[in-house]
Amino acid sequence: MSDVMEHYQDDGLHEECGVFGMYDFDGHDVARTIYYGLFALQHRGQESCGIAVSDTEGPKGKVLSSKGMGLVNEVFTQEDLDKLKGNIGVGHVRYSTAGASTRENAQPLVLNYIKGTLALAHNGNLVNAPELRRELAHDGAIFQTTIDSEVIAYHIARERVKTSSAEEAVQNAMKKLVGSYSLIVMSPRKLIGARDPFGFRPLCIGKRDNAYVLASESCALDTIGAEFVRDVEPGEMVVISPEKGIESHRELCQKEHGRCVFEYIYFARPDSVIDGMSVYQSRIIAGRCLAKDSPVDADLVVGVPESGNAAALGYSLESGIPYGTAFVKNGYVGRTFIKPKQSQRESSVRVKLNVLKDAVAGKRVIMIDDSIVRGTTSDRIVSMLKEAGAKEVHVRISSPPFLYPCYFGTDVPDSDQLIAYNRTIEEIRQIIGADSLGYLKLERLPELTGGRQFCQGCFTGKWPIDPPKEDIRGEYDA
Amino acid sequence: MSDVMEHYQDDGLHEECGVFGMYDFDGHDVARTIYYGLFALQHRGQESCGIAVSDTEGPKGKVLSSKGMGLVNEVFTQEDLDKLKGNIGVGHVRYSTAGASTRENAQPLVLNYIKGTLALAHNGNLVNAPELRRELAHDGAIFQTTIDSEVIAYHIARERVKTSSAEEAVQNAMKKLVGSYSLIVMSPRKLIGARDPFGFRPLCIGKRDNAYVLASESCALDTIGAEFVRDVEPGEMVVISPEKGIESHRELCQKEHGRCVFEYIYFARPDSVIDGMSVYQSRIIAGRCLAKDSPVDADLVVGVPESGNAAALGYSLESGIPYGTAFVKNGYVGRTFIKPKQSQRESSVRVKLNVLKDAVAGKRVIMIDDSIVRGTTSDRIVSMLKEAGAKEVHVRISSPPFLYPCYFGTDVPDSDQLIAYNRTIEEIRQIIGADSLGYLKLERLPELTGGRQFCQGCFTGKWPIDPPKEDIRGEYDA
Amino acid sequence: MSDVMEHYQDDGLHEECGVFGMYDFDGHDVARTIYYGLFALQHRGQESCGIAVSDTEGPKGKVLSSKGMGLVNEVFTQEDLDKLKGNIGVGHVRYSTAGASTRENAQPLVLNYIKGTLALAHNGNLVNAPELRRELAHDGAIFQTTIDSEVIAYHIARERVKTSSAEEAVQNAMKKLVGSYSLIVMSPRKLIGARDPFGFRPLCIGKRDNAYVLASESCALDTIGAEFVRDVEPGEMVVISPEKGIESHRELCQKEHGRCVFEYIYFARPDSVIDGMSVYQSRIIAGRCLAKDSPVDADLVVGVPESGNAAALGYSLESGIPYGTAFVKNGYVGRTFIKPKQSQRESSVRVKLNVLKDAVAGKRVIMIDDSIVRGTTSDRIVSMLKEAGAKEVHVRISSPPFLYPCYFGTDVPDSDQLIAYNRTIEEIRQIIGADSLGYLKLERLPELTGGRQFCQGCFTGKWPIDPPKEDIRGEYDA
Amino acid sequence: MSDVMEHYQDDGLHEECGVFGMYDFDGHDVARTIYYGLFALQHRGQESCGIAVSDTEGPKGKVLSSKGMGLVNEVFTQEDLDKLKGNIGVGHVRYSTAGASTRENAQPLVLNYIKGTLALAHNGNLVNAPELRRELAHDGAIFQTTIDSEVIAYHIARERVKTSSAEEAVQNAMKKLVGSYSLIVMSPRKLIGARDPFGFRPLCIGKRDNAYVLASESCALDTIGAEFVRDVEPGEMVVISPEKGIESHRELCQKEHGRCVFEYIYFARPDSVIDGMSVYQSRIIAGRCLAKDSPVDADLVVGVPESGNAAALGYSLESGIPYGTAFVKNGYVGRTFIKPKQSQRESSVRVKLNVLKDAVAGKRVIMIDDSIVRGTTSDRIVSMLKEAGAKEVHVRISSPPFLYPCYFGTDVPDSDQLIAYNRTIEEIRQIIGADSLGYLKLERLPELTGGRQFCQGCFTGKWPIDPPKEDIRGEYDA
Repeated sequence: MSDVMEHYQDDGLHEECGVFGMYDFDGHDVARTIYYGLFALQHRGQESCGIAVSDTEGPKGKVLSSKGMGLVNEVFTQEDLDKLKGNIGVGHVRYSTAGASTRENAQPLVLNYIKGTLALAHNGNLVNAPELRRELAHDGAIFQTTIDSEVIAYHIARERVKTSSAEEAVQNAMKKLVGSYSLIVMSPRKLIGARDPFGFRPLCIGKRDNAYVLASESCALDTIGAEFVRDVEPGEMVVISPEKGIESHRELCQKEHGRCVFEYIYFARPDSVIDGMSVYQSRIIAGRCLAKDSPVDADLVVGVPESGNAAALGYSLESGIPYGTAFVKNGYVGRTFIKPKQSQRESSVRVKLNVLKDAVAGKRVIMIDDSIVRGTTSDRIVSMLKEAGAKEVHVRISSPPFLYPCYFGTDVPDSDQLIAYNRTIEEIRQIIGADSLGYLKLERLPELTGGRQFCQGCFTGKWPIDPPKEDIRGEYDA
Repeated sequence: MSDVMEHYQDDGLHEECGVFGMYDFDGHDVARTIYYGLFALQHRGQESCGIAVSDTEGPKGKVLSSKGMGLVNEVFTQEDLDKLKGNIGVGHVRYSTAGASTRENAQPLVLNYIKGTLALAHNGNLVNAPELRRELAHDGAIFQTTIDSEVIAYHIARERVKTSSAEEAVQNAMKKLVGSYSLIVMSPRKLIGARDPFGFRPLCIGKRDNAYVLASESCALDTIGAEFVRDVEPGEMVVISPEKGIESHRELCQKEHGRCVFEYIYFARPDSVIDGMSVYQSRIIAGRCLAKDSPVDADLVVGVPESGNAAALGYSLESGIPYGTAFVKNGYVGRTFIKPKQSQRESSVRVKLNVLKDAVAGKRVIMIDDSIVRGTTSDRIVSMLKEAGAKEVHVRISSPPFLYPCYFGTDVPDSDQLIAYNRTIEEIRQIIGADSLGYLKLERLPELTGGRQFCQGCFTGKWPIDPPKEDIRGEYDA
Repeated sequence: MSDVMEHYQDDGLHEECGVFGMYDFDGHDVARTIYYGLFALQHRGQESCGIAVSDTEGPKGKVLSSKGMGLVNEVFTQEDLDKLKGNIGVGHVRYSTAGASTRENAQPLVLNYIKGTLALAHNGNLVNAPELRRELAHDGAIFQTTIDSEVIAYHIARERVKTSSAEEAVQNAMKKLVGSYSLIVMSPRKLIGARDPFGFRPLCIGKRDNAYVLASESCALDTIGAEFVRDVEPGEMVVISPEKGIESHRELCQKEHGRCVFEYIYFARPDSVIDGMSVYQSRIIAGRCLAKDSPVDADLVVGVPESGNAAALGYSLESGIPYGTAFVKNGYVGRTFIKPKQSQRESSVRVKLNVLKDAVAGKRVIMIDDSIVRGTTSDRIVSMLKEAGAKEVHVRISSPPFLYPCYFGTDVPDSDQLIAYNRTIEEIRQIIGADSLGYLKLERLPELTGGRQFCQGCFTGKWPIDPPKEDIRGEYDA
Repeated sequence: MSDVMEHYQDDGLHEECGVFGMYDFDGHDVARTIYYGLFALQHRGQESCGIAVSDTEGPKGKVLSSKGMGLVNEVFTQEDLDKLKGNIGVGHVRYSTAGASTRENAQPLVLNYIKGTLALAHNGNLVNAPELRRELAHDGAIFQTTIDSEVIAYHIARERVKTSSAEEAVQNAMKKLVGSYSLIVMSPRKLIGARDPFGFRPLCIGKRDNAYVLASESCALDTIGAEFVRDVEPGEMVVISPEKGIESHRELCQKEHGRCVFEYIYFARPDSVIDGMSVYQSRIIAGRCLAKDSPVDADLVVGVPESGNAAALGYSLESGIPYGTAFVKNGYVGRTFIKPKQSQRESSVRVKLNVLKDAVAGKRVIMIDDSIVRGTTSDRIVSMLKEAGAKEVHVRISSPPFLYPCYFGTDVPDSDQLIAYNRTIEEIRQIIGADSLGYLKLERLPELTGGRQFCQGCFTGKWPIDPPKEDIRGEYDA
């Protein structure tokens, strides 16, 4: 089978990537553990995945890798994992926000450069990728993928010529990168983790026996039975080696941060703890805030699964209105699922989501969702509740309205595609057919992040870094 | 690729099958709608699936079919569905309780017999299959599968020789079948649905435009946008044809029924309504009963996903103790998922389920599960809650203890493998490490089924039909 | 992936099947050797293949099998072969002459019957299959495939009820089968080979160390390093068991035979020896006869590959006209090859066959082919030679003209599709554009078979057995 | 499925690549024609293949590509070809001589660079690739493959910065490349073909209607029904564009050439004409020369298929000894074929090749082969002939003895692995067990190439270009 790939898309928001790295100082193979680590991060990207490993005891720079389109459980066979021999490795799951959805763009990127071999896994989006690409191209660089990671790799390679160690090269390269990146780099004898100075995307450190682990989210540590050590700080680079264990470089650390609040609201798994704040708690708080700020008399609070559930619970706890379940979600949708055509009687929403009529019939329902992007799905879900007999449907959104696009690693689209842009809340309410509508207040966001600084660009149009002059999303798609 | 298949197994309980049939009198193709219908029934069987269709306007008896190992979304391609032209069809999803897990055993069974072609989809287990098989074999029958459906097909074929219509043959065959069966038979011009006299397994009728639908559960009707007409009654046979619409045959209907209460407790999707009782309501009631009968002072009620959630909600509603979420389930496990080995640090339970530490730490937790089979999983889950900081873990089971095996279409194993057999509740509590343990009282079961008669064999050892003299489960596995 | 199969067809003649069985008395696994045996017989069928094995030391009747659509090298993986543990086994390669090309029809057929398990591989076509099928159907039999082998299996099963051994049952069943069959039956402890009384299809016996082998052609014995023991005689049944080695049953042997002369002319591999006559020699003789009976003055004799080459050599040896090569055949066409559409500039013939211009330009060429069926391919090949600069093209056919269909295991079509039916040789010559045309004389055929009796039905319309009253080819296709 | 690839290897010689490009000025899609073109070149590489196309009327630089491991007929589906919309394209088949056999190394290479997108297909080996790679690496280049084509692409990209057109960049890049290359470059609006100054590898131009074609061999032109225009000359670059048709650049053309004589003796298809010399004629001449220089009294001349056949015919024509066929080759070996293990009774040679006993028994046989590399296969084949009853086996080789490795695009190994190195012909004869042995005389080679200059490095150790200082074969394998 060949690889002319088709894009699989739906209406929701998408995170672009999850990264996972491991270095076993005792020499045990890591591929299989990386497999389970990626499996735990599968929610961060379902289009492609890959694992690259190296044996620090073997011939220097010998890297084995395996990548493919699809879910972790579809791409890797037992035989693949058996072949991936090595005690240092890096893995990646991908959903494409920039760069086409093709096998060429699957990560980790494995490459030969001046000092041997390098494997790279990246979560984020560079704002200055086009400039950097153009600059490199003017020097005669060639690009075989459309992903930012290739730009990063180039900079590391160029710096490596002038520096005496891989970590120095990574550190120097970081100085040129503008945007969001949580990065794992595997050099022949070191595993390096780095997070952009604003800390847009998460990255944490774990430990299991005599092995260190880097992962996008702490849930991946739980899955493999590793203990959580700490988060990589915004701007920090950590270098893992048997000689020095974990070494920290904080040259780029700064006071101003820009964590993505949507990691808490939607992207991350609720059982993850990011930068000291539990994602689950964050959602409970969002629900409580909504109950305080947008109260309504009703019989039942329900969440749109999965991310709306915790917020719904928070709303229920605060308001005293009973929590319930209104939806059954069909989780068997895979990459090859054949979607209903517009012309058919079946609809995409109904195939994936069904209403529990007995739970909602005759009731005034408060429905909590994490966000409204274009509004098309909300419209349908409200209708389904009403068809199922709900007397009233009050929609509460556990985030402020989206007004601006995101350039830092999510696929929040341009303003003209956002239902909330240039519309009043009343207008949106009418479009989606709800009896009332309430959003989380912008000033509540600090409560969700435990007071940590965050990016609010998609709500305010003011990002911690200037947005790119040109559209970086999809430009190089081939 | 060839088909030497391996068995994929886990610890839980399994339903064996889901069936779906459709007859479009207007002549529209039905394969794609059957695809979505099977998708809605995927929870009833994930090992193999298949669709067979026929064109009632085309050459008589021309049946096209497509089957394979795996999930609905893995087995069928767009191209497959495009080729399955026909306005009458039947589909099946399978988990094997009897018969090996091989492609040969995938359904629907398509066969040529005296009167042309027949396709058959079956959910259930015949108690007298070995005798029937032996009897047929003595007459020189050959068996190419190890599934009961082949025995049923033989009987229909033999009866058809002596009768004047397919429905008469099916009706006569039913008289010889002892056990559980919900059956859909597609003859060249008719779609026939039948349910055993005790009604062990569900089967219902739906309608969409000028098409009739038969399905294991009503959730499949919702998914395709069909309206629910009614359940097929225990012992009833319905014949769908353009001439007469739906025709009912009730010769085998009887007063005594034996519905499987576990359809309500565990197997069915909560959004289904079976024999007039909502599965969701049934679970809520189970939770309420537990709260009444096994009260305990605690801070939080949680369900083991997915089936424990509704019962937990019921417990919360009745007791006033707040409902919460304690677990995150990783739903990306597919047929090809590589399971952790015993020797590895990763464990099967932890890879699929993680605890929300922030939700349970320092709390007294009531954990609701639908059942305990061997007890190995419960043991691990209780430990995980405690490791996550739960002060107390009180386990409540929304069904009575399993003491006896099931011979009617589920894989409840023999007594010696059941933790509750020959053990007191206190002994079980100690084994699973809970602070207290309570089961649903047997006398509460009628409340769960809306007062309808049901089978309680796995709790009492008294089944509506005598169990088979020999073990029917797996005997013919090749 | 599912199995809605498409028929892959071309213009030539096709053999329907090859069979291979092995019994290792020392207990070694046979699957891998069967794999190479089938590989040697691949020319006899490229649509599907399968292997079934049993362990005579293991639990009685435990049969493992693996089948699939495609070539031997595509269907079986190393993992498949590793799983097929057993010291007795049977394999099959198939091209469909009767029965649709679907996975359901792939052989060996594995079935449970009164006395346990049976695996069956069959090459041939029963003339009375429809009657037998109807008869069985009237007794309530069901058919899950459209292949004759299922009819044979039924008869064996029915006889087994009344007899004391598998071989007796096979022998009795053979008495009811009319038509062509070379059969290998694997019972739990015996391997049985049988050939119809006319010996239409070949079957031979080999030996390697302490193992016996049955194979359609002797080339398969060479491939696995086994020695040739002898042919199974027309009408003979041989029973292989550790107790008695090879036991022969000749009850059905008769004087009148009906070997297929096309095994020598076209189907079999030239390195096979069938019933004591070398296929290669047979073709050399055919060429010599053509040279004697249809001489022509020319510069070069060439064969249409592959089967025409040996006859061309014979023509050259007899006539003294130099032998040459005129064509290059592209052998990389597999089951999934995308054929040129009529509307495209590329043509099916040219994609597979190219002319060596330097070999033929300016020359008078004698082109030897094994047969002309519909004439469409011959037409193109003659044109290609002329376009390449051949001054004259004299076509010589190493068989008499096809005038009647074949009902005994090849796909020679009905008379109205045969170019030679109702046409003079001169008319055919004009259609194919040759400068002269000569066929092998009917009276020469005995020389090709070493004087053995053969079937000449496709030339004379007089078959050793009456043709079926109804068309048996494709009737049951589903 | 993922892509941890395994190397499939056998004993013979291998060509590394075939290239095919097409530009349809009328705007018709070319992917399907490229498919047939690659199919005709399949003998030049069976490990991987790929097609890249672009629509010159569409958005500039939008390239679609499809690649995979395996044969042309395995890699591309109908759906793939349908998606590859574009009227300009390039294709590639690959066998790896340098660079590992992984999907990453499959060609065409598609890349973005300073001026948009470029696709590149390359046949050959650069002698200075390591130096060029090192040089580029010192400037910070990164390499994602281990193939020379990436080095070429880099040079084109770097030149493009300084030049005003793609062809100028290609021309300048060529000046830095030392070694063998037949190259097809697709820029957004031009198709460029180039051949190294020595012309090691072939490349020719064809035309069909209003489309131009570039192909490794003329047989690919025949297959798609294009007419042969002319060969690209050694050192020439041709630029195909709708404005100027074919434009020639001969700046690098020189008098000294180094055609690979093994293209004639072994690699190319006999129906190809390379640089004005028919491959078929070349082999006939080789056979005639052998008959003149190494005569022997015998009964039969046979060729080792396929490449030995034409030489055997030449020997027969010259000597008057009858030509015959001694071997039957099994052509169904695909990429996934499971090879016999050393420990098994089956052998790799016998599985692929069988002797026609009747053709050779009792005869004195002259066996013509194209070359002897390590001698292991020759040894077996001679034995097989003797076992089949040949009285004498006289081996004649249609090339001089291999004494030195090849660095220019074939896999002739190092001297210490070559049987002829440091051995007399008599010693070799004894090793392979022949009754006599003769090689083609070195001074005969000009006759085979029609007097054209050629490389005789593998016979003399004197290559037209100095061999690389370091081993270029396999160095960068990852």
